[in-house]
Amino acid sequence: MLTRIDHIGIACHDLDATVEFYRATYGFEVFHEEINEEQGVREAMLKINDTSDGGASYLQLLEPTREDSAVGKWLTKNGEGVHHIAFGTADVDGDAADIRGKGVRVLYDEPRTGSMGSRITFLHPKDCHGVLTELVTASQEH
Amino acid sequence: MLTRIDHIGIACHDLDATVEFYRATYGFEVFHEEINEEQGVREAMLKINDTSDGGASYLQLLEPTREDSAVGKWLTKNGEGVHHIAFGTADVDGDAADIRGKGVRVLYDEPRTGSMGSRITFLHPKDCHGVLTELVTASQEH
Repeated sequence: MLTRIDHIGIACHDLDATVEFYRATYGFEVFHEEINEEQGVREAMLKINDTSDGGASYLQLLEPTREDSAVGKWLTKNGEGVHHIAFGTADVDGDAADIRGKGVRVLYDEPRTGSMGSRITFLHPKDCHGVLTELVTASQEH
Repeated sequence: MLTRIDHIGIACHDLDATVEFYRATYGFEVFHEEINEEQGVREAMLKINDTSDGGASYLQLLEPTREDSAVGKWLTKNGEGVHHIAFGTADVDGDAADIRGKGVRVLYDEPRTGSMGSRITFLHPKDCHGVLTELVTASQEH
């Protein structure tokens, strides 16, 4: 069951400049930063609020580490902006299987590693009214 | 001060079909539905979680009521997808003035009426790394 907005994923050309924009404009601070080589991104998580399911909601700022990564190709086509949205669940495997059974394409056979040790998968935007949708189980939810 | 992700605004061609997609796929239910003639949208709010500032996070599904509305024009250009993101604050007037003072264009001189009696304004996406950004004070925050 999806119990929170886990994050909004925002693609940008320059992570440091975008982090500085969010800090200077709104006062949002970096909670965590990492490079995910599998996804081809350097990313910063800005924690915005805690959520009623014991988790939290973040902005995830994403700079591609290579042009041929999914985010790199998306940026070339669309320019900076909201790349995906993510819902949190305690059971990404069960929810992905359930949603696949409803005819929505799930992009990975098995969840992969996301931010801060989470386990993630994505749903095809064409099956979700144009929204690239991620499902996340945070590492502490295991 | 912005204290939560208030909502993610998603533009769609057919509100009823999109509401049904979110219900059937994820179990999300409609919390509120209204027509905002000023914004030129019919909209449904799906509540996802409560937030640590005493508010909540929603998906806001938006169908234009006329093609020449902001959302109508955006849909014609981009197709269905994430239209904007919104941060919650107890003081939309003060935060909008503060952010305007930092050189970010605020689209309204005074906040207007948003979902469920809230007061809202928008920041220019070109000043926000491509993200149309809304500030919201919920009606119960006054």
